[in-house]
Amino acid sequence: MSISSFFPPQRTLMGPGPSDVNPRVLSALARPTVGHLDPTFIGMMDEVKTLIQYAFQTNNTYTMAISAPGSAGMEACFVNLLTPNDTVVVCKNGVFGARMVENVTRIGAKAIVIEGEWGRAVNPQQLEDTLKQNPQASVVAFVHAETSTGALSDAQALCSIAKQYDCLTIVDAVTSLAGVELRVDDWGIDAVYSGSQKCLSCVPGLSPISFSEQAAELIKKRNAPVQSWFLDQSLVMDYWSGQGKRSYHHTAPVNSLYALHESLVILQNEGLEQSWQRHRTMHNKLAGGLEQLGINFIVPKEERLPQLNAVYIPEGVDDAAVRHTLLNDYNLEIGAGLGAFAGKAWRIGLMGYAARNENVTLCLAALKNTLPA
Amino acid sequence: MSISSFFPPQRTLMGPGPSDVNPRVLSALARPTVGHLDPTFIGMMDEVKTLIQYAFQTNNTYTMAISAPGSAGMEACFVNLLTPNDTVVVCKNGVFGARMVENVTRIGAKAIVIEGEWGRAVNPQQLEDTLKQNPQASVVAFVHAETSTGALSDAQALCSIAKQYDCLTIVDAVTSLAGVELRVDDWGIDAVYSGSQKCLSCVPGLSPISFSEQAAELIKKRNAPVQSWFLDQSLVMDYWSGQGKRSYHHTAPVNSLYALHESLVILQNEGLEQSWQRHRTMHNKLAGGLEQLGINFIVPKEERLPQLNAVYIPEGVDDAAVRHTLLNDYNLEIGAGLGAFAGKAWRIGLMGYAARNENVTLCLAALKNTLPA
Repeated sequence: MSISSFFPPQRTLMGPGPSDVNPRVLSALARPTVGHLDPTFIGMMDEVKTLIQYAFQTNNTYTMAISAPGSAGMEACFVNLLTPNDTVVVCKNGVFGARMVENVTRIGAKAIVIEGEWGRAVNPQQLEDTLKQNPQASVVAFVHAETSTGALSDAQALCSIAKQYDCLTIVDAVTSLAGVELRVDDWGIDAVYSGSQKCLSCVPGLSPISFSEQAAELIKKRNAPVQSWFLDQSLVMDYWSGQGKRSYHHTAPVNSLYALHESLVILQNEGLEQSWQRHRTMHNKLAGGLEQLGINFIVPKEERLPQLNAVYIPEGVDDAAVRHTLLNDYNLEIGAGLGAFAGKAWRIGLMGYAARNENVTLCLAALKNTLPA
Repeated sequence: MSISSFFPPQRTLMGPGPSDVNPRVLSALARPTVGHLDPTFIGMMDEVKTLIQYAFQTNNTYTMAISAPGSAGMEACFVNLLTPNDTVVVCKNGVFGARMVENVTRIGAKAIVIEGEWGRAVNPQQLEDTLKQNPQASVVAFVHAETSTGALSDAQALCSIAKQYDCLTIVDAVTSLAGVELRVDDWGIDAVYSGSQKCLSCVPGLSPISFSEQAAELIKKRNAPVQSWFLDQSLVMDYWSGQGKRSYHHTAPVNSLYALHESLVILQNEGLEQSWQRHRTMHNKLAGGLEQLGINFIVPKEERLPQLNAVYIPEGVDDAAVRHTLLNDYNLEIGAGLGAFAGKAWRIGLMGYAARNENVTLCLAALKNTLPA
């Protein structure tokens, strides 16, 4: 056995994530490692917390980055807030809603699943009807931006309905954060998680997360221990907390947090609303070009995610062959369909640093060259 | 709010981990991100698997890196192998043995705890006595190298006893991997996990893990789903497996895996036994110097970890003040005591790239300058 160093190709990442990483982020990533209890690092963690609060538009104290990908962020929300006695309404309109159901059932809690149409937003009326019929439900969970379908749900409306029925809300903001409007406090979101590798354009592996005061109280008052020691947020907060001494819980992924910090500084400097607008502008440009190529969107216009463009593969076109050519001849990655859309759709990401004019132009030109006339 | 980019100081890391990171690893970390299903990345994952097999000295198919720190690797072993009906003997001789107990009880399984002395190896006779008295036990768990105390246990002897009583073995090799002899197949270890940030000298955040064929069979045959979706290894293996199509489970931490790959290539090039020997040589040098300074080891000589030197803080010496001076005047980090040793011990790491002559020399000279004459 003799294995050599690995040198990856330079791709343009326009799939469902990871997205193109800003070179500033890669540069931050490679800075010298310090200890996870080093005073300089603790200071940086406080800044990461402040910057995540800004990105989520929240003042929640219980805000941090989980030391693992978005799926672990999802699991952290469910295992900390639920016990086996709870009933959760899960709005499922794609792969990640289905994953939420998995999380609920593995806790031993009861999931009431609202089956939504793939490629459509969650229907607020369906949620209201379900809550009316199930007064025992105490939590509502849904995906803000379904990465598997490209559909954007009205998080504000859904949270407002949940609150009318005294339910806590768990919101998946993996693909939405920094790409479309998201206001955790104003909308009454109780638990929210995201991923580093989508519209933040950081490397994959971390999950920003935040809990409302009400959710934090619930976690503090739990009798049953959280089933995951690694994801027990009452322990993790003793490490992330600004007050007094930091308690060791696990060794933080130091360099990945440098990268997340840098990506959040870039977001702060651009401005959150400006970032939302840039994603919208680039989406409009891409959508216009795709229509000219005769490529149709799956999601109706008013429910579309600007940062994740799910489109039907044109009839007679070989899915794998096109993606292979884009990757090999143009170093361009676009995403395959997932779940119900496997083999039927492409997912073209315009996330974070990938939402740039040069990327849109390359993608449209490469598609034009590759597709049969 | 206006937060700027973070530039960490250049430290020499001689605590309990993270250890000094080889500059080659930082350089690999910053290479361009590719997609987690990119063919070039899948090829690199296969190499990571082969290299982890080499480091663990195993042919186990079920070998991979968990996308989270060592504590998640620990949890992955327990949640995949146990159900609430199981009884586990946990040998506890420090903080990480106690964490194992937490893992067992949060599953709802029964832990029989062997209370060992802090700073000593696990007593094989105690294990044998306990197994004799508890024929219902089906799993034995212990820490090979206790990071909280610097004690090395005889993993070969403990596994051999466990096998006599038909128990599976779960072994914590977080600090031992690449620093001292570890032979997963020869010693009959069924589940083993480590961390990237110790003797591999990679950045923190990943956990190499491996399951024997017997353990893998048990996971495949489970009726009850694993309580953690994120750590369900039967799902994760569909992404890491070499056979056929890779199934998406979660987005792999692409850049961190570049770094792990590079750290394992460096280990392969040095040779595993040469790495063990280097740790031993540097330890002997450090130990000689510490004795000259009148600093005493906690662990008896034959049970000492070369890569983690736990020593008593000399009488009358201000723990925090010394560590503060080392950090601020010499950019040198050594570890504080943990658990029962908090305030009483220092932990001086010589892990991976930190196990170098220049580090030993700096540490001894800085300590000499800092300690009262």
